[in-house]
Amino acid sequence: MATSNPPLKDDLDIVIPTIRNLDFLEMWRPFFEQYHLIIVQDGDPSRAIKVPNGFDYELYNRNDINKILGPKASCISFKDSACRCFGYLVSKKKYIFTIDDDCFVAKDPTGNDINALSQHIRNLLNPSTPYFFNTLYDPFADGADFVRGYPFSLREGIPTAVSHGLWLNIPDYDAPTQLVKPRERNTRYVDAVMTIPKGTLFPMCGMNLAFDRQLIGPAMYFGLMGDGQPIGRYDDMWAGWCVKVICDHLGLGIKTGLPYIWHSKASNPFVNLKKEYKGIFWQEEIIPFFQAISLPKECTTVQQCYVELSKHVKDKLGKIDPYFVKLSDAMLTWIEAWDQLNPLEAKKGNGK
Amino acid sequence: MATSNPPLKDDLDIVIPTIRNLDFLEMWRPFFEQYHLIIVQDGDPSRAIKVPNGFDYELYNRNDINKILGPKASCISFKDSACRCFGYLVSKKKYIFTIDDDCFVAKDPTGNDINALSQHIRNLLNPSTPYFFNTLYDPFADGADFVRGYPFSLREGIPTAVSHGLWLNIPDYDAPTQLVKPRERNTRYVDAVMTIPKGTLFPMCGMNLAFDRQLIGPAMYFGLMGDGQPIGRYDDMWAGWCVKVICDHLGLGIKTGLPYIWHSKASNPFVNLKKEYKGIFWQEEIIPFFQAISLPKECTTVQQCYVELSKHVKDKLGKIDPYFVKLSDAMLTWIEAWDQLNPLEAKKGNGK
Repeated sequence: MATSNPPLKDDLDIVIPTIRNLDFLEMWRPFFEQYHLIIVQDGDPSRAIKVPNGFDYELYNRNDINKILGPKASCISFKDSACRCFGYLVSKKKYIFTIDDDCFVAKDPTGNDINALSQHIRNLLNPSTPYFFNTLYDPFADGADFVRGYPFSLREGIPTAVSHGLWLNIPDYDAPTQLVKPRERNTRYVDAVMTIPKGTLFPMCGMNLAFDRQLIGPAMYFGLMGDGQPIGRYDDMWAGWCVKVICDHLGLGIKTGLPYIWHSKASNPFVNLKKEYKGIFWQEEIIPFFQAISLPKECTTVQQCYVELSKHVKDKLGKIDPYFVKLSDAMLTWIEAWDQLNPLEAKKGNGK
Repeated sequence: MATSNPPLKDDLDIVIPTIRNLDFLEMWRPFFEQYHLIIVQDGDPSRAIKVPNGFDYELYNRNDINKILGPKASCISFKDSACRCFGYLVSKKKYIFTIDDDCFVAKDPTGNDINALSQHIRNLLNPSTPYFFNTLYDPFADGADFVRGYPFSLREGIPTAVSHGLWLNIPDYDAPTQLVKPRERNTRYVDAVMTIPKGTLFPMCGMNLAFDRQLIGPAMYFGLMGDGQPIGRYDDMWAGWCVKVICDHLGLGIKTGLPYIWHSKASNPFVNLKKEYKGIFWQEEIIPFFQAISLPKECTTVQQCYVELSKHVKDKLGKIDPYFVKLSDAMLTWIEAWDQLNPLEAKKGNGK
């Protein structure tokens, strides 16, 4: 039986990284207006960002980030949407929903507006089932269940830490695929939510993503990207690899599928290629690295796991490029910043 | 780019286990008539099974099975749809599609008849991608591809050995779920095909299933079920666990999702409970057993893997119940029967 959606007004923040006026919020008004927004302004801090009337928000620009974090601000990327993770640090809520400012309300096949946030909450409130595959997809969806042959001992499931939503219209392709298929649009509405199996990595996109900040927040670090860094557009991927390995270790689940948003415009593939090209090589070594990682039993909190992971990054990935040594240090700085801004959680371990 | 469907008339057999007249074939005529059918008649061999005119078929009843296999016929179940695997033995084709006689042509959301066989062939002819998860599902589907962050070295994929199709209307539930939810019907058309990740087991249903007999045939043994056995309704599950472990070892892929068939009627949940109840307990130990298995590198053919697996079954599962010792012996008998009826393949190893 699916858990119905309780009111989460006071339990959830919406985090939006942006460099422009947030006109896109008009379309989301019926779904977002009751929630608090955390806007992370990227780029020139002197530029004023207009937010439509009626929204409850706080806004941080680079000056604010530097002031709040001091020297630790070095772990927050600049001129890259990776800066969004600053919003996860300053939130005090249990859940985060993060969305890009070029994402609009999609329609389901019957023509109704999709309430993406409500589906994310549903995904997060219902258990995950990563230890065995259910061929009818989400067993907690209406009219669905576990199929014949699904072990009964695994049907209780485990807590869900992440809900990864998808995109109609412009798919989330890398630069080479964008270049090769400039006209491809995603029109396939797949009416499914599924748990990513244990031991399987996935490409986590930050465009339409929700998570339980108390369960996995300290691992949702979007790395060093953009200004001054040799790489971009791997911020969410990096977070996804780290989060998946830690969720697998701690017995937390990750779901992907519904809800869809409408992704309005493709970013420039030439610019993207420049940002991505080192990542295209590096990921061939990074992914086997994450596939092979085994965290020690002693790591029982997200913070402990993340610190342990940072050591592996330095040891193993540091050989690929000095960038990973810097990234490893930034991972530690991030955890320090997290614990500084979330002292109560730090005391409790990972807040569980 | 998806591989288009070449004519497979001479490459595929349709295997149907049955105890009744095959009136259900009328609805499948436009899709099945060009193919050869192998009908495995279960139960009383003196009963005549009527096949609609115009179909090209061969039919085997229990007397035929005993005559062809002699003492080895002991490995073929009686009074259980597990008998269908005899059809895999006697086929000489590259591909098998097997379907239950209470399965009809389903309609897609636009109201068109679904050509299940054509979708299975498409699934089998396109590669599988079990080493990393693609969030937009089948990258070889029209209008889809690998998403950003999918390693380029893994995009060639690996050969697909199995295509597992799903069911609209009556879902494939176990007896307890049937009892608890007698009115539940599957109305959710999920427009997706996906590779089951490496290392993840799944409940393989034999109702609507296709596979590459040359790649995986010798592992498609449906076990000892029904008459004289302590268990039923785990035939396809058993095959699925064995097949998945061997596919993972040999670098072969398994897909699930489309195509749907229309499953017309639920079997009796009380009868099912009687057949299943030992399986409900046993699977709690069998699944961890299969999850933990590691086949030695020396096993490079399906037959070698299967013989190795049979030893593990005897050693580890034999402790649960003497049934598994008998099953382990039957697994060896099955391989002997396979090699007897497929001498050329036996010589080549697994026919690759």
